[in-house]
Amino acid sequence: MTAVFDHLWLRGLFGDDEAAAIWAPHRQFAHMLAFEAAYTRALGAVGKAHPDAAEMVAKTIEGFKPDIADLRTGTAFDGVPIPALIDQLRRAAGNNGKIVHTGATSQDVIDTALSLALREFNLLVDRRISNITEALTQLIEQFGENALMGQTRMQAALPISVADRLRTWLDPLNDHQKRLRAIKPQVELLQLGGPVGNRTSMAPHGDAIAAHMASELKLANPSNCWHTKRDGLADYASIMSLITGSLGKMGQDVCLMAQHGVDEVALVSGGQSSAMPHKKNPILAELLVALARFNATQLSGMHHALVHEQERSGAAWMLEWMTLPQMAMVTARSLSAAHHLVETITSVGCLAAAQAAS
Amino acid sequence: MTAVFDHLWLRGLFGDDEAAAIWAPHRQFAHMLAFEAAYTRALGAVGKAHPDAAEMVAKTIEGFKPDIADLRTGTAFDGVPIPALIDQLRRAAGNNGKIVHTGATSQDVIDTALSLALREFNLLVDRRISNITEALTQLIEQFGENALMGQTRMQAALPISVADRLRTWLDPLNDHQKRLRAIKPQVELLQLGGPVGNRTSMAPHGDAIAAHMASELKLANPSNCWHTKRDGLADYASIMSLITGSLGKMGQDVCLMAQHGVDEVALVSGGQSSAMPHKKNPILAELLVALARFNATQLSGMHHALVHEQERSGAAWMLEWMTLPQMAMVTARSLSAAHHLVETITSVGCLAAAQAAS
Amino acid sequence: MTAVFDHLWLRGLFGDDEAAAIWAPHRQFAHMLAFEAAYTRALGAVGKAHPDAAEMVAKTIEGFKPDIADLRTGTAFDGVPIPALIDQLRRAAGNNGKIVHTGATSQDVIDTALSLALREFNLLVDRRISNITEALTQLIEQFGENALMGQTRMQAALPISVADRLRTWLDPLNDHQKRLRAIKPQVELLQLGGPVGNRTSMAPHGDAIAAHMASELKLANPSNCWHTKRDGLADYASIMSLITGSLGKMGQDVCLMAQHGVDEVALVSGGQSSAMPHKKNPILAELLVALARFNATQLSGMHHALVHEQERSGAAWMLEWMTLPQMAMVTARSLSAAHHLVETITSVGCLAAAQAAS
Amino acid sequence: MTAVFDHLWLRGLFGDDEAAAIWAPHRQFAHMLAFEAAYTRALGAVGKAHPDAAEMVAKTIEGFKPDIADLRTGTAFDGVPIPALIDQLRRAAGNNGKIVHTGATSQDVIDTALSLALREFNLLVDRRISNITEALTQLIEQFGENALMGQTRMQAALPISVADRLRTWLDPLNDHQKRLRAIKPQVELLQLGGPVGNRTSMAPHGDAIAAHMASELKLANPSNCWHTKRDGLADYASIMSLITGSLGKMGQDVCLMAQHGVDEVALVSGGQSSAMPHKKNPILAELLVALARFNATQLSGMHHALVHEQERSGAAWMLEWMTLPQMAMVTARSLSAAHHLVETITSVGCLAAAQAAS
Repeated sequence: MTAVFDHLWLRGLFGDDEAAAIWAPHRQFAHMLAFEAAYTRALGAVGKAHPDAAEMVAKTIEGFKPDIADLRTGTAFDGVPIPALIDQLRRAAGNNGKIVHTGATSQDVIDTALSLALREFNLLVDRRISNITEALTQLIEQFGENALMGQTRMQAALPISVADRLRTWLDPLNDHQKRLRAIKPQVELLQLGGPVGNRTSMAPHGDAIAAHMASELKLANPSNCWHTKRDGLADYASIMSLITGSLGKMGQDVCLMAQHGVDEVALVSGGQSSAMPHKKNPILAELLVALARFNATQLSGMHHALVHEQERSGAAWMLEWMTLPQMAMVTARSLSAAHHLVETITSVGCLAAAQAAS
Repeated sequence: MTAVFDHLWLRGLFGDDEAAAIWAPHRQFAHMLAFEAAYTRALGAVGKAHPDAAEMVAKTIEGFKPDIADLRTGTAFDGVPIPALIDQLRRAAGNNGKIVHTGATSQDVIDTALSLALREFNLLVDRRISNITEALTQLIEQFGENALMGQTRMQAALPISVADRLRTWLDPLNDHQKRLRAIKPQVELLQLGGPVGNRTSMAPHGDAIAAHMASELKLANPSNCWHTKRDGLADYASIMSLITGSLGKMGQDVCLMAQHGVDEVALVSGGQSSAMPHKKNPILAELLVALARFNATQLSGMHHALVHEQERSGAAWMLEWMTLPQMAMVTARSLSAAHHLVETITSVGCLAAAQAAS
Repeated sequence: MTAVFDHLWLRGLFGDDEAAAIWAPHRQFAHMLAFEAAYTRALGAVGKAHPDAAEMVAKTIEGFKPDIADLRTGTAFDGVPIPALIDQLRRAAGNNGKIVHTGATSQDVIDTALSLALREFNLLVDRRISNITEALTQLIEQFGENALMGQTRMQAALPISVADRLRTWLDPLNDHQKRLRAIKPQVELLQLGGPVGNRTSMAPHGDAIAAHMASELKLANPSNCWHTKRDGLADYASIMSLITGSLGKMGQDVCLMAQHGVDEVALVSGGQSSAMPHKKNPILAELLVALARFNATQLSGMHHALVHEQERSGAAWMLEWMTLPQMAMVTARSLSAAHHLVETITSVGCLAAAQAAS
Repeated sequence: MTAVFDHLWLRGLFGDDEAAAIWAPHRQFAHMLAFEAAYTRALGAVGKAHPDAAEMVAKTIEGFKPDIADLRTGTAFDGVPIPALIDQLRRAAGNNGKIVHTGATSQDVIDTALSLALREFNLLVDRRISNITEALTQLIEQFGENALMGQTRMQAALPISVADRLRTWLDPLNDHQKRLRAIKPQVELLQLGGPVGNRTSMAPHGDAIAAHMASELKLANPSNCWHTKRDGLADYASIMSLITGSLGKMGQDVCLMAQHGVDEVALVSGGQSSAMPHKKNPILAELLVALARFNATQLSGMHHALVHEQERSGAAWMLEWMTLPQMAMVTARSLSAAHHLVETITSVGCLAAAQAAS
């Protein structure tokens, strides 16, 4: 539990229960089973397996309880949990075991499970962006006409309105929501290529199997597999970092506005100091800055993972596993922290600026 | 001349004349003058200045020859060249000097000049992507049916066709071209906000001035200024890195295919070793990998620059200036190197794989 | 459990039990109690508290069982667990409660706890480097005189010996061990500054308290606090990344040597493919590459955290918490994976190179 | 001239003439000739060439004027300028031409030339650190007893002295100077390995040649070549980023102290706004923050370049060329800007804090 998202007490600050549920191993496992069940049914539908046997096996898969310790050992040895999982599933399927997974490859399962997680996660992000934009819109309605001193290059410039400042927080969020909606078909999509990505292992039914599966799993059905084409994921990671970056700008602004002597924003509460009870620290605003810089750093890793050699790069793929989920956790937390921060703002504006403006 | 793009001999490898011309200071200067001329004419059009005087000043601006040393000194002192430039322009404009720039701010000029550079650069990138996709399509036509050993996790897997491999190089480029065309309105756009970004310095004609200028400069006209809203640029940088990342994957593949004893690709030529004349080094393929990793690294800097405090962050803005142009240079060079590399491929395929496949 | 180190099955590949124990929250908690106990005793020793009362309180602290849920809630509110912890400890200390922590600050506790963790972790890293260098030395003894084809720019160059190649794996590790030993006094050190870092809250006994504590905790005693001086940690992170980078080079080499048709290294086993039972994937070698690139990416975050404003930056400090522990976990795993990989090598060398050399 | 260091007017802000001279191509070229001359003399000394012929050739090399266009063309083709350079030198050496470079490799020349540049650069960095520490020491003498409000988490905490704050700027610089002096033998060192790094091309005189050359060039003489052992350079890059990071902290502090209404620091001058003549922008302080974040980003690239496959990685090496010189330029400029900034400080302190403290 070194990760701040899961840490015994740090998760109070960095954690996000709703996002954690989406990225939980048990949920990932359910997505992997969903792949295998859909694949089995598709084999039945195209005649690669007897439809009744396929349906029976699919039901077995859907109700399957894994031996997690065996998956862990298998992952240590194989680099992926799938060979161990397939062994378990085939034993469970008994005489029909050979239907399971035949013609597919580990990456088909793991990447499709990721797509299913991203579909759930995108709903969370979209909804949270809406929540913040509503809260900011209300804040503008309430305090927008107040004066504020416009600050450029960290120096007082000319008076502006609170609405002027707050719209620079609001506008990018609307754009990010559009970006998120536009990218969904590029990341909520079936992965199906077979061992070397060209579906020959499922010939001549590869495309038909893919169509069946995409329909059952409610995922987009790309014309080719994307085993080594990771630009959709890297682009998605960029959107995550754009979101946390824009919220980081808001956090930095709030830190500056909340400075003693500046007092342009009042917060209903702030963190307590162990040594100085008089202080009210703008914890959530600082958190937004930290999360922005964290994601800005991680994004580089996702782009290095684009150099994905030949038909499958173990190294580049592992780098994605290490990076993307934590970027998602950070994004979710940034959104919830930003929303909470906006809600704790009890006033915005600056009398001195108002006087200067009048 | 520490930068590889401009270096006396390294630019033979890393440089790109066409891209360098787009990003050249003199071209940037022309864009800054274009802003000032358009701004002056717009002031005339909305009645903030006499139309004839405005037109006369605009013509003076368009023909203006700067004192570069003075701009350099001014940049050292002010952090931007604009105050020095405005002094020069006002002197040139004589009695009408006060029309020049009044109501605008340095960032309006510099960011709009960037937009004009990006418009030119986007044409170059778009055209070069088309060139590579055509060359790859021809390569597929010529050698696509040859066999190749599919390699997963750097181990021989199962035979595939050359077309299977080459399509993983081609497909992402088509997507990048779509991304580039989609993002144009978000980066080829007017910047106009005035000192603190809310156009009050041009009131009540701010929006009208913007409309005039966008029309004259042929840029998109956003409803608000984007002084601190940098997600368009960060997203654009991500597309640059997606392009170089995909070409880096191609480069890495070619390096692996060109290994002695593997011999899956033949190149018409390769670099010479100072010590081993028998060697043919796959220089351009290696270059693609290096450029991919360079841009993947830089991208992080552009995302850190999203934390752009208050109405203008000097620090975040400078970080963009240091980062974005070199990402563009790297992207341009990656595209030209990839095209050249594809053209030097004289055969692709592997007899052993063909035998294994048969 | 999104982090690969703790993940239900991925920790089979990425996890490291021994390192996880060092970085476990309960161990961190023990370190925080060690700070508070030592601080209390030091207050007694310098006469800021009655020695008997101080000793009694210190014993209470050492045996204290925390209310973790309360720490988590406190962290959410205060940004650090210390205010909640101090409340708990003071209640436990009863009438002597006010001795606890008085004059110290949250950062003193958290940073010193980190130093104590790093001291344990450095022993692990040092020992593991020795293990690998021994294993590599044995490998050189066993196979060092075999021939190998020297490869430059991914092209066959001239024959070398196996020892030539393996020494490029071994040499940097020896240097890293020296670096690690040299940096210990810069990271295994007491943090004690009080609320604003100048020890005035402990005046006139600040330096004496520090000396007592450093002696009891067996940490170096710097002349000033390092609340905002984070170069020791950033430099340490660099050493972690140097280690994983060098092991990544070894991993990349093994991947290339293990290629089918190249066959310069034989491994006793490799990962299994779910689709191709004939394959033996060099999982651990790929893992080393992924871990190297991960740490190379994270390092940037640790250096951004150097911009640590004023007397304490919440944002920069949080960024460290998110980054350094996972860099340590990756380093530990890279060392264990590299050791395991070296042990599974059953032969190194290349007959063709031997023939070419003869 | 896209790079800010060389840009027509941006170099007024980002450029550094003294550092630029050290990293100038013509200076690099002189270093490459120094390598070749020393190598030739060493061949003479060990009996690989007639001493008189060797000396004559060495003198020819030292006075050689290159055909730069040919070097550029050669670099484009070979990936390095050395084959073209050797051709030019051999023609110049006439009948003794074959002495030139025989047994050495391109990387020996380029890396040794880098070492020679770093030796010059280290003198500059060391001297500039001394300059800043002196200026800061004077500032502490002058204003150190003034009061300042200590700020933690961007909130007023308790009064401190100006000396307390300024020592957090000064202390790390002293440490960086020690680091720089300690690392010199790891980066100011001869590179000599021959084509595949094991000096067999110079057998049996490889070590003797190296000893001669190290002595003539006044570089450390490592026992092995470091063609693929790049940890010295990556560690050096880390020190560069530590320096700019610490100066970035100082810059961020000055930005915050110079805020209107905070007014804890007075600067003799600041940048001018094109729109607001009343403003005095803390340009140099902002610059320090931007340079810190730039280097923190670049550092990641240098660590990715540690994954340097086999006996020479073209890709990893190129990545170094793109990254290290600009990190050096940024470091030099950060040092000069910080020095200048400190010199423009006319007062530090805060009356309100003094009153609060009394």
